Amino acid sequence: MQRIAIQGQTASFHDQAAHQLFSGTFEIIPCDTFAEVFAALEHKKADMAVCAIENSLYGAINEVYDLLHQQNAWICGEKYLPITQNLLGMPGTKLTDIKEVYSHPVALAQCSEFLDGLSNIDRHEHEDTAGAAADVAAWQEPHKAAIASEYAAASYGLRVLAPAVENDRQNYTRFVALSPHKPDTPQSATKTSLILDTRHAPGALAQVLGTFAKHQINLTMLTSRPIIGDPGHYRFYIDLDAGAGASSFKQAEKELNTAGCNLTILGTYMASALPWNA
Amino acid sequence: MQRIAIQGQTASFHDQAAHQLFSGTFEIIPCDTFAEVFAALEHKKADMAVCAIENSLYGAINEVYDLLHQQNAWICGEKYLPITQNLLGMPGTKLTDIKEVYSHPVALAQCSEFLDGLSNIDRHEHEDTAGAAADVAAWQEPHKAAIASEYAAASYGLRVLAPAVENDRQNYTRFVALSPHKPDTPQSATKTSLILDTRHAPGALAQVLGTFAKHQINLTMLTSRPIIGDPGHYRFYIDLDAGAGASSFKQAEKELNTAGCNLTILGTYMASALPWNA
Repeated sequence: MQRIAIQGQTASFHDQAAHQLFSGTFEIIPCDTFAEVFAALEHKKADMAVCAIENSLYGAINEVYDLLHQQNAWICGEKYLPITQNLLGMPGTKLTDIKEVYSHPVALAQCSEFLDGLSNIDRHEHEDTAGAAADVAAWQEPHKAAIASEYAAASYGLRVLAPAVENDRQNYTRFVALSPHKPDTPQSATKTSLILDTRHAPGALAQVLGTFAKHQINLTMLTSRPIIGDPGHYRFYIDLDAGAGASSFKQAEKELNTAGCNLTILGTYMASALPWNA
Repeated sequence: MQRIAIQGQTASFHDQAAHQLFSGTFEIIPCDTFAEVFAALEHKKADMAVCAIENSLYGAINEVYDLLHQQNAWICGEKYLPITQNLLGMPGTKLTDIKEVYSHPVALAQCSEFLDGLSNIDRHEHEDTAGAAADVAAWQEPHKAAIASEYAAASYGLRVLAPAVENDRQNYTRFVALSPHKPDTPQSATKTSLILDTRHAPGALAQVLGTFAKHQINLTMLTSRPIIGDPGHYRFYIDLDAGAGASSFKQAEKELNTAGCNLTILGTYMASALPWNA
């Protein structure tokens, strides 16, 4: 059976993303950190992995971009999930019974307006939203609730006391499927993720973006990371709306290589449908 | 007396940066968070502010970029500080006396190799490096030490038991001076920070970078942030090595405005000397 490493535990958003990215039966390998997910792939403790890479409110998850740079894993798919948080309690409890709420600090912050509207609620930080739901289910105390997903409610037999309680509803996380081997370019690829290191070439970013624009290839994401040990220099991570096998991409890449720009391809894969109105 | 808001407390790296960015006597207004620093300027509780904006290991400080977008503060200067951490103890103590080390979790992580080399050391998290030094000085217990700057040692009468104990020595933070008013363009300006919102113009980033390159203006930094409420779209923060009053900058800006690209200037100021070999 295929083993899929995820950050977080069963019933987390990562678990949910894994079930949308992979079909059939597989074993989830829960990992505490993103570094452990990449290590699981490298040390063959997992066959594939699923990792959050950016969020529509938070931005790029820098740690994941830094891990991708080590080139031990390649992106082979993506999926956007709407992040909807809910107040979950024991079956038979009502909203007015709740005195303590448990969740990850980011989830508590993202639901602050809803929590501010409840009276006499103590907020307790937990390392994981799904873990908070698991604990609330295990404690069986009617005054304790968790902020977590509907998927966690279903997994742990909790009831949704209040649905969609986050401050901002445009909350989406992009997850990627990772392979420990560099895959062949699939025919179905419509998106490419790559790294550009401009350390030794001022103006290289302008040249790269200009070349792709000339070939009608659009940028869907660009973020930068400092180059450790070389202060003042950056590495750029770019997503483009073309597969690496497309003739426009191949032509642009050839022109850039001739001009001395080196691109490192992190993966080329089928773009996921966007869950919002673009 | 001029009041200068900083994130963190007296004897922090922010305090040290304030003393390099401003001359004469002034009052430091300590703030717990970056949001409080910006609020202090907006509500006239401070005349100026000093804020870390990027670090050579960590990257851009996203929260500060998001606050700058609100346009309640403008950048009017910058300063790079080397971030050197030291083990500080009570006068009269030796390195072998130390059993407990207090510091901010990031500083503890950045000094992990040194701490791993000491035997039987308990690590304790503190909200602030300078605050850890202040506490160690107040406790007066010879087995307790802090990881903090030499500036904090001098401020609280502690002794440097081990200098420069961080794993990576290429650790620099860029601090900016902030004004609550949009300043006039100074003659001395050699650097400009701006925002580009490409929401309604695919290819705008390529166009902007290409136009500046044509006018021999180099990019010194580029980072992106998601546009909240508009998933899949980004705002770019760009630093350029030209003042906004330079004829090359004015010409580039004019061409971009004609082409429908709108740039928001966050500040134009004299570039700081770089403390590393570029």
